[in-house]
This record gives sequence, C-alpha cells and structure tokens, in this order.
Amino acid sequence: MSAPEPARLRLIASCPDRTGIVARVATFLADRGASITDAAQYNDPRSAMFFMRSEFLVEGGSGVREKLEAEFKSLAESLKLDWRLVDAERRQRVVLLVSKFDHCLAYLLHRRKVGDLEFDVPCVISNHDDLRSLVEWYGIPYHHVPVPKDAAGKQAALEKTADLIGAAEPDTIVLARYMQIFPPWLCERYRHRVINIHHSFLPSFIGGKPYHQAEERGVKLIGATCHYVTEELDAGPIIEQDVTRIRHSDSIKDMMRLGKDVENAVLSRGLRYHLEDRVIVQGNKTILFS
Amino acid sequence: MSAPEPARLRLIASCPDRTGIVARVATFLADRGASITDAAQYNDPRSAMFFMRSEFLVEGGSGVREKLEAEFKSLAESLKLDWRLVDAERRQRVVLLVSKFDHCLAYLLHRRKVGDLEFDVPCVISNHDDLRSLVEWYGIPYHHVPVPKDAAGKQAALEKTADLIGAAEPDTIVLARYMQIFPPWLCERYRHRVINIHHSFLPSFIGGKPYHQAEERGVKLIGATCHYVTEELDAGPIIEQDVTRIRHSDSIKDMMRLGKDVENAVLSRGLRYHLEDRVIVQGNKTILFS
Amino acid sequence: MSAPEPARLRLIASCPDRTGIVARVATFLADRGASITDAAQYNDPRSAMFFMRSEFLVEGGSGVREKLEAEFKSLAESLKLDWRLVDAERRQRVVLLVSKFDHCLAYLLHRRKVGDLEFDVPCVISNHDDLRSLVEWYGIPYHHVPVPKDAAGKQAALEKTADLIGAAEPDTIVLARYMQIFPPWLCERYRHRVINIHHSFLPSFIGGKPYHQAEERGVKLIGATCHYVTEELDAGPIIEQDVTRIRHSDSIKDMMRLGKDVENAVLSRGLRYHLEDRVIVQGNKTILFS
Amino acid sequence: MSAPEPARLRLIASCPDRTGIVARVATFLADRGASITDAAQYNDPRSAMFFMRSEFLVEGGSGVREKLEAEFKSLAESLKLDWRLVDAERRQRVVLLVSKFDHCLAYLLHRRKVGDLEFDVPCVISNHDDLRSLVEWYGIPYHHVPVPKDAAGKQAALEKTADLIGAAEPDTIVLARYMQIFPPWLCERYRHRVINIHHSFLPSFIGGKPYHQAEERGVKLIGATCHYVTEELDAGPIIEQDVTRIRHSDSIKDMMRLGKDVENAVLSRGLRYHLEDRVIVQGNKTILFS
Repeated sequence: MSAPEPARLRLIASCPDRTGIVARVATFLADRGASITDAAQYNDPRSAMFFMRSEFLVEGGSGVREKLEAEFKSLAESLKLDWRLVDAERRQRVVLLVSKFDHCLAYLLHRRKVGDLEFDVPCVISNHDDLRSLVEWYGIPYHHVPVPKDAAGKQAALEKTADLIGAAEPDTIVLARYMQIFPPWLCERYRHRVINIHHSFLPSFIGGKPYHQAEERGVKLIGATCHYVTEELDAGPIIEQDVTRIRHSDSIKDMMRLGKDVENAVLSRGLRYHLEDRVIVQGNKTILFS
Repeated sequence: MSAPEPARLRLIASCPDRTGIVARVATFLADRGASITDAAQYNDPRSAMFFMRSEFLVEGGSGVREKLEAEFKSLAESLKLDWRLVDAERRQRVVLLVSKFDHCLAYLLHRRKVGDLEFDVPCVISNHDDLRSLVEWYGIPYHHVPVPKDAAGKQAALEKTADLIGAAEPDTIVLARYMQIFPPWLCERYRHRVINIHHSFLPSFIGGKPYHQAEERGVKLIGATCHYVTEELDAGPIIEQDVTRIRHSDSIKDMMRLGKDVENAVLSRGLRYHLEDRVIVQGNKTILFS
Repeated sequence: MSAPEPARLRLIASCPDRTGIVARVATFLADRGASITDAAQYNDPRSAMFFMRSEFLVEGGSGVREKLEAEFKSLAESLKLDWRLVDAERRQRVVLLVSKFDHCLAYLLHRRKVGDLEFDVPCVISNHDDLRSLVEWYGIPYHHVPVPKDAAGKQAALEKTADLIGAAEPDTIVLARYMQIFPPWLCERYRHRVINIHHSFLPSFIGGKPYHQAEERGVKLIGATCHYVTEELDAGPIIEQDVTRIRHSDSIKDMMRLGKDVENAVLSRGLRYHLEDRVIVQGNKTILFS
Repeated sequence: MSAPEPARLRLIASCPDRTGIVARVATFLADRGASITDAAQYNDPRSAMFFMRSEFLVEGGSGVREKLEAEFKSLAESLKLDWRLVDAERRQRVVLLVSKFDHCLAYLLHRRKVGDLEFDVPCVISNHDDLRSLVEWYGIPYHHVPVPKDAAGKQAALEKTADLIGAAEPDTIVLARYMQIFPPWLCERYRHRVINIHHSFLPSFIGGKPYHQAEERGVKLIGATCHYVTEELDAGPIIEQDVTRIRHSDSIKDMMRLGKDVENAVLSRGLRYHLEDRVIVQGNKTILFS
C-alpha cells in the first residue's frame, strides 16, 4: 500500500513586526515535517506590519490541515497573528455576477474549463437574462434577478441577490462587469472577498462609461483595474492594473474592443493572485506576493 | 558644379472635410516636382475635420520653402486650410524651463548632444540656480529667475521669465519639470507650443506630488504624461503617455527613481513628435501621425 | 426615395518611386467624387519603392468598385502599380486550420461572433477531430483530415487539405496552431494570404516546442509572432509580435498558459491588419499602415 | 551616548532541498536578534534545489557581519549551503569596460551620481580613448588599453586588461557595450560576476551588429538582454530582458536610438538586481528574487 500524497498547504499571516516571527513559524512547520516550496516575507516600514505567505508540502493524510490549524493557534495568539491556513488544492467557490457584457464571463469560464484557472462556480447571478445560454452551456446554474429602478424594488432585488449569494456559500464573489452598485452591507459581509473589474486605469475615470470619459479626455492609453470592492465606489484596494495603447482614430467602439483584452488579462491575473492567496490587504492597499 | 541637395519640407494642414483636398494639394506639390516620402491623412468623423501631414523632397535651392509657401496661399484659402509649410531640416529653437530635478533636462541635453534629438537651445531658464553647471557644461546660457512667494514678486518674476523667453525667440517651450504655474497669458502667446511633462498618468493625480498621491492610492503602475500647456492645470491636449509597474515594496523614493525613466521616455517621444510636426491639436485632443 | 449609402473602398498600391503618384491617384479618386477617410503613403529608401493605402467613401451604388477598377487600369499601368481595389465592407472568406490546441480558434470564433473581428469562415480543417464540437457549435463546417506519418499518406492528406481549401474559395488561410508543415506549393498558390501564429518571439525558437526551448534557455520574456507563411519554416514576413514576462518559478505549463494570451493578441491584431489591408509585403518584410 | 544604527545584512543561500532549512536559518538569525525586512524562498522542482534570500537588521556594531559569518559556518555546513552573508550597505566595487558607445556608460555614471544606483567605480577600462573626458569628468580613472588585431597583440592587451581589473579588486565587472570577446579564463576568474548588455532579445541575433540582423529579419520589436558572461558567446545566464516596438519606417539608425533606452533600462535593472543580491545562478538560468 503506497503512502498518500503530501498535502499542499498555504499559511498567510500578518502581524505587528517583531523579532523571530519567521523563526517561530518556520520551526513550527519544520517540526511537523513541512517542506516549504515557495515563500516570501515582507516588513512594511510605513505600517510597521509584517506579512508572510508560505506554501509547503506536509504528510499526514486528509485531516492534516485541520490538525495543523488547531496546533498553530497558541503560537498565532502569542505572535498576535492575523492568519489563515488553507488547502492549496481545495478549489474556491466563486459566485460570478454579470450584467450584459459577456467578455469577462466568457473568458473566465473558458479558462476555467481548460484548467488554466482553478475554481468552482456554484452559480452566476445577473440583473439581465442575456447570458443564460452561455452559462448553462457550461452546466452552471444561472439566476436572473431583475433590478427595478425604484428604491423598494431595488432593495428587494439586492436582498434576493444576497440570499442567492448566501445560499451558494462562496469563498469569493467576482463582479465580472456587473453594472450595479454592490451595497456596503454586502461588502462588509464578504470583506476583501468581493472582486470587481473596472474598465479604466483607476483612479482615472471612476464611475460610469469610463471609455467615454477616456475618449473625452483624449488619453493615449486605456486601462483596467481589478480591486476589492468597498463601500466607496471604485476606491477599494487595487490588486492589479494594466493599460493598452490607443490611437486618435480609435472610436469608443474600438476602445471597448481593445479594452476587452486588457479587462480579461487584468481580471484573470487579479483573480489568480487572489485564489492563490497572494494578496494581503493592508489599509487601502494590497501586499502582492507574486 | 553639382546640383544642390533637394530640400526636405513638411506640409501640415487641417480643414473642414470635403472632396478633393488630397488631390489638389498633391497636384500642387507634384507640379513643383515634389517627391513625397512619408504622408498620412485622416478624416475625423467626430469633428468632420480633415488632417494631413506630408513630408517631401523638392529641388529649388535655399528659397524654395518661401517660394512654395507664397504659391500655396491661394489654394490654401480656397480649401479653408489651417496650414504651415516647414523646412524639415531647420532645427527648432527650444527654450527649456526647469526647477531642481535634473533628469529630464540631463536626458534632453545628452540626447541632443549625441544627435538623437535635433533642436537648438537658446537658453535654459530656472527658478533655482542648481542646474547651472550642468547647462553651462553644454555651452548653453542659463538664466536664474527666482520666484518669490508674494503675488507682486511672483508677477515680476513671471514677466522677467516671459521677457527672457521672448528674447530667445523660441519655436517651442519645454517645461522639463518646471514646478511653477505657467500663466494663461503666456500659454496664449505660445499656443500649442508649450510642452509639459507631468509625472502621472493623467487625468490621475493632477497637481502637486503625484508620486505621493500614487503611493496613497496604492496603484500598481505609475505613469507620465506629455501634454500641451493650457490655462487649466494638467488638462491640456495629451501628446504621449506611458506607465511602468511598481511593487508594494516600492517607496516614494523608488517611485521617483522608476518614474524618471518613464518621464524621460514620454517627454522625449512627445517632443520628437512635436519637433517632427506629427502632432495636430484638435479641440482638447491631439491627432498624432506617428 | 433615399440615396444609397456611399461605398467604402480601399486602394492598396506599390510601385517604384517617382514624382506625382499621389497627385495622379488622388486626382483620379477626386474626379469620381471619392472622399478620403484614412490614408498613408511611404517611400522606402532601401528599396526605392513607394507604398500607399487609401480608404475612401464614394457614391455610385453596388457596382462602383468594379467600375472604378476598370477605369483605374490605364493609370495603374502607366505608374507600374502593383495594386488592388477592395470593398472595405466585403467580409473576407477565411479558412482556419487547427490541430488540437483550441485557444486561438476559440478566441477568433468568439471575437468574430460578437462582431469584434469581421470575416466569414467557410470551414475549419484539422488533422484531429478534437475541436469539432466547438466549431460546429458556431455552425461552421468542420473537416477532419488525419495526416499519417508515412510520406505517401502525408502527401494524400495534404492534397485532400488543398482540395478542401480550394473548394472553400478563401481569401485568406489562417494556421491557428496547425501543427503541420504547410507545403511550398500551397504557400505559392496562396502567396501572402496564409497567416501563421508561432508561439515564440521569432527568430528565437524556430520549429517545434518553442516554450520548451524558452524554458531551456532561461529567457525572461516569452513571445508570439504572426507572419505570412513561406517555404522556409517560421521565416516568412512578420506582421506582428509581442511578448509577456515570465518568472523563474513558471513551469512550461505556466508558459503555455501565459503564452495563450500573447498568441491570441498577436494573431488577432495581425489578422485584423491583414483583413483591413494594412499590410504590404516588401521582400521578406512588411510595411504596416497601422 | 546613542546606540549605533543596526546593520542591514543579506544572507543568500542555496542547497539541495530538505525539510527545516528556513526554520534553522531563521532561528539562527532570531537568536541573534535579527529582524527580517524582506525575504523569499523558492524550491525549484526541476533541480530539487532550495534558494533563499533574507534581508535583515541586526544590532552589534561594525563587526557584526564577520561575527555572524563565523558563527553561521557550522550550520551552513550541516545544511550543505552554498551561501554568502553580505553587508547591504557596503557599496560594491564595479569595474566598467566600454568601447566607443557612450549611452550605457553615461546612464550608469549619471544614475550613480544622483544616488539612484549605489556602487563604487575604481576605474573604467576601454579599448578606445573616446570616452575618457566623460569618465574623468566624474573623477574616475580611465585606462585606455588598445586591442591590436594580431593574436599576440590581442593576448597582451587582454593580459593588461586583466591586470588592471585585478588591481581594482572588483566585486563585479560590467561590459557596458565592450565590443571585445571576454576570454574564458577571465570569465572563470570572476564567475557570475561579469555582466554584459547585449543589444538584442537573446537568443535572437547573437554576435555582432544585432540591429542590422533585426532590420534584415524584419522584426516588429527590438530588445536587449543583460546576462552573466560565460565562455560561450551571448549564451550565459540571463538576468533581465526587455523590448520596444519599431515601425517599418525605422532605419538602423532609428533602431540604435530606440534601442539605447531599452539597453539602459535592462542593464540598470539587471545591475540593480545583481547589486542587491537578488540573482542566484542555477545551471544556465537565474533565480530572480525581485
């Protein structure tokens, strides 16, 4: 009978800086036979906070993560760690919210299907019914929650959306071009777990129709920004950004077409960093162990 | 006795769109033996304006530009052209304004010296005396015009600066990190001939200390923008932009260092486009025949 | 009864350089009421050849292209022009050849479906049957032509492939990751109309398994190249190239994943340039009016 | 009397992978009061080698590095570490070798002068006398060692160059566009300490006149590569690479001009990584803790 494969785990932690954090954590891991495969530590001089991410292999069968988690608690407490220990091979549950634009959704679902991005999608929720056939082609449930214009109707729609999200028990929520405001109370419920793709190089062109704003201003590059959603519109911690060059002859329609590739690239890179636990939020910024 | 080299001229023109502009202009040129080496035309559907740039070789000795200019007038009038005919080999006179940061100045002067950028510098003007030795090493006159804090002193300094600029008879003025507001009446006097380098990806981080603003917001790319100066701060027509990636560990000092290369690249590309008459301002945007 | 929309045509031409080409061509167009919307001319000093591309609107109903084509012949002859006059709104017929990798195919078919790229696909031909369902989902005929290892079988497969291509009457053939040598006699038959995407920054890593070659060499960027196919492997005129950064921790599988986005971007940009008649082959290089 | 500033040290190490390396090294450091500010570890699955870089602050006054070095030896031996412990604030001695092109030299000397790159330059050695005044303006000794064409003369010149290098006691040697073959015996003497900038995207265009080769092939991007010099020409471990876009109208002279900025960027980034001990050579590749 052959031994089981070792588990691949990740420890993500931050704490006020002090001497000996790495030594104590690494000793804890070594004492349990963990073999570190990829790790990084960073001491932020501005906040005097220490950040670390360690990926490691460890024997011990299926309950090893829970066992280590229980054993780590007292050390974590003495170091005042904000931490989590995750199974690197467990696929996160990601709920996708969309409106009518299909490119980010199509890109994520395709890349997931061919194994380039690894996560599960319990459901897709949309305020329109347009993308149902695409989603159902992938065998994923699609919930259409129309959002009326009136305040009461809007509130009811939000609550229904929240219920559907809750029932899906997501690790992460991705607003893959969801053209609705995500309410503060939902941001709070899934703090640093709601990811948005905004089709501009933030903080330029906050809010609606950023390509129109870009065309109006006459910029020479357009961009996209992947960020955690917070109560303030388009102002949350940035995970990833990129840009692409445009020409004077490019119309808004051209910008939308060129922008799709940047949006897809930025969202998929940002989501990958998040799924691989490479992002730690510090204030309104992110530490990115890429 | 050998024939003189043909002159290399450029015709830059714009007008309300109509049929036959290229035909009539190209026929005018062909009738005078001009050989087109590089040209482009563009009809902007938003403004219904037509833009063209033609570079051509023509025989005729030293006065040929003036001769063609005189002959072209009636055609230009009938086409309602906004135009200019320039000698491509004539070096523009470029006055440089700087404060204390030396990287843009050093880059431009070095690149000019080795022949990578071709222009003359009648003088450099600064509100500080710091960069005198660098400038004088290149044999260029340096004018130190301190700018006091009080309104009257400031006004007097501006007028002295304007006088020095005027005496230099510049074609173009470059604010190569000049940390003073360029007054509207000077913008107007040298309309679309004053070029600024701003150390952010505009319209993000307008005004002072853009790297500090970038650090505060937690962006993942920093940028630079080369634009024509207008009365509104950092809001003039954009000529060129670019960005570079930063990491969470980069301090403001690191951003400044990384930003220098982007600023130099963007300013030198933008200035080159301008010196080669590749930029036509249309409203608050630029047509760029690059 | 309303007037018909004007036709949008493109004239692409090259010839040994001489004075008056633009004048005579533009006059020809103006005499027929053509309104130039976007045009460029370039005189290559190395080959002493003149290149031009003009896009214009012209009235005259459905037969106007053929009428202008007939009328242009004598002028073209006197200028020794190599030229074509195309209807900018006519969709090209593009035959796609693929093997097993689906990303370029999926990207092109998706972008075509949503209107970002405009062309018709009479059929897809593959030496494997793997991508049939994807292609047929788009309602496009799929031909599976297995390519045996033996010379006679290979030759028969090539001839069958050539017959299928011929029957499809393509304007353009795209090798969208077709892992077979395209024979010289087919290159010759569709000269400068067969486009390949190679997954390296050519001329680095010619031939098979370029990501393995890249990993072996330890490069810090991987790339992709879109080029016209000629008899010499991976050596034809380059249309477009780009690169993306990799890290020491990226495996060949990671490179393949990262490379997909570069391949898609480069192929779709290159194909767009080709479909918009922006590429003129000169020797083993391309003039690109982008 | 105030306490001295803590020393900033760096430990760079690699060894065959095993459990507990980080724990034992970090414990060693913590036991001596070291505070880690930036660190990374990587286990290369291809070579089964473990790599680490730790930057830390430690009290103990001026001899602390030597003291730690002595104390670390037995641990290092038991872990079979290939390691070094360096003072992060000690400026490396960098000998620069150049020929006639001045841009890399000018860039490095300028960036060093303004504090953007920190190293000392005991001398510059050249096979030409052209750049003497530039170098001496910075107060740096300049050695002109002409390299004759004949084998005996060449050998004598190499030996004189080697003597000058030896007398300068360099940590690192930079071939900042040195157009001479660096002999294998000198490579061996300064193994992984000789850095070259090659003006192409290697492995494309190895050897002489890469811009001419690029022009001949018709590539759409040109590049530069910074690598450690080994006995095989342009084949050593790559530290950094980048590219820039060119157009069909760019002549070789234009490529040289555009290439300068890429060469400067790539060399200065590569040199910075090296000076900050971020590069570990593994076979013919580099691990880059950037």
